[in-house]
Amino acid sequence: MGTYRLLVAYDGSGFHGYASQRDVRTVQGTLEAALGPVTGMVETSVAGRTDAGVHATGQVVSFATDRDVDPAVVQRAVNARTGPEIAVLAAERADDEFHARFSATGRQYRYVVLNREAPDPFLAQTAWHVGTALDLDAMNAAVAPLVGEHDFASFCRKAEGRSTVRAVRWAWWRRHADRVELSVAATSFCHQMVRSIVAVAVDAGRGRLDPEDVPEILAARDRSAVRGAAPPHGLTLVAVAYPGSPLVRPDWVAATS
Amino acid sequence: MGTYRLLVAYDGSGFHGYASQRDVRTVQGTLEAALGPVTGMVETSVAGRTDAGVHATGQVVSFATDRDVDPAVVQRAVNARTGPEIAVLAAERADDEFHARFSATGRQYRYVVLNREAPDPFLAQTAWHVGTALDLDAMNAAVAPLVGEHDFASFCRKAEGRSTVRAVRWAWWRRHADRVELSVAATSFCHQMVRSIVAVAVDAGRGRLDPEDVPEILAARDRSAVRGAAPPHGLTLVAVAYPGSPLVRPDWVAATS
Repeated sequence: MGTYRLLVAYDGSGFHGYASQRDVRTVQGTLEAALGPVTGMVETSVAGRTDAGVHATGQVVSFATDRDVDPAVVQRAVNARTGPEIAVLAAERADDEFHARFSATGRQYRYVVLNREAPDPFLAQTAWHVGTALDLDAMNAAVAPLVGEHDFASFCRKAEGRSTVRAVRWAWWRRHADRVELSVAATSFCHQMVRSIVAVAVDAGRGRLDPEDVPEILAARDRSAVRGAAPPHGLTLVAVAYPGSPLVRPDWVAATS
Repeated sequence: MGTYRLLVAYDGSGFHGYASQRDVRTVQGTLEAALGPVTGMVETSVAGRTDAGVHATGQVVSFATDRDVDPAVVQRAVNARTGPEIAVLAAERADDEFHARFSATGRQYRYVVLNREAPDPFLAQTAWHVGTALDLDAMNAAVAPLVGEHDFASFCRKAEGRSTVRAVRWAWWRRHADRVELSVAATSFCHQMVRSIVAVAVDAGRGRLDPEDVPEILAARDRSAVRGAAPPHGLTLVAVAYPGSPLVRPDWVAATS
């Protein structure tokens, strides 16, 4: 009896996103079905409702149950039923006030672009393949103006009545062999925000967009100011922060970003 | 007009092995179908005929054609048709005597075991998940007696009339975070040889087999002396050697192995 907290990884390729929907396979639906036999029917909450095709290595899920179950038993039972596409990496009891979504103070994502001519069979589900050479400096110049608190309406899929003001803590690209990788963190992200930021940065890296135009795109507060969104499969939720356990900025992220 | 050499990577998960078979999807069949429009119908030869589920990052394929085609055009045409599961990483003209299989002087494989309790969704197709802690020293003690020239009949699926004598150049396991990885190289390997070596080593790592019994298993020259074979999906062909381009021993492989 009490509240439980799970650290979860999943390959989003085979799911219609995280959130439960009727008649389609979702991460939440699969997870709750696997929890049922050990915890009783539960309704889970989640730190980041990832879209179809998006992955997670550090998702956080919480739920309350009337049963008194050893967290290690919960972990093993779920892994036996959902593995290997979904893995519970850790399970523990949490305070009754703990809520995976509302207690979270930050979310960190990674976006990977495979930047070479030939595809890579082993990155097919986890990286966006861009065959033309990308200019890393232009990509970093494009994301720099986004750091800080802004209205990200230009980068968010519209949700009537919801604020699109967000605080981005860092956003930085690095090249790692034939991969170009973004690390980005914010208090929270609105829908399609990271993939829209990636679309703008990759356009800058390809020379199709001048990074100096980004402040104007941001100021427009208009979704049509950004052309589309990068494909979901390059995106991974890597970490969620809670009071007492902050995000860790990768050492390769520029301090000024 | 001439002989061509391709460096090929593939995720073997969706194929019934490398070699062409009627009515099933194979790497060779897919590759030759993609080559057809640019090279005309060709029959390819391959350095390592991998089994169903086995991967490659450094496979070598050769073929002869009457057409005079730019190798870069061959590479692009094949990648456009087979990507992302199969990728041609490089394409070049070769001497007319070059034959991917018969010219090869060495093959190097990697086998990856995920050694932790929870599964990893991102290694589901490329690592064998073993949940119980493995003893790395026992695993290295088990493979050490296999280095050198021996009759590997105990480790080979029987093929009537074919020699099972092979020269293993090195075999060594390392631990890398929650993964345990074998690097093994030989002039060539008989069918199921690497996976049988892995089965013996993992049995030793689990404490089910005494590494000191390995010389006896080898001396038996009897397939029934080895219990089964490790699953195919942990195995990857990483490199092939030809005269003038030898294998490169990873720096973490013990010099004595």
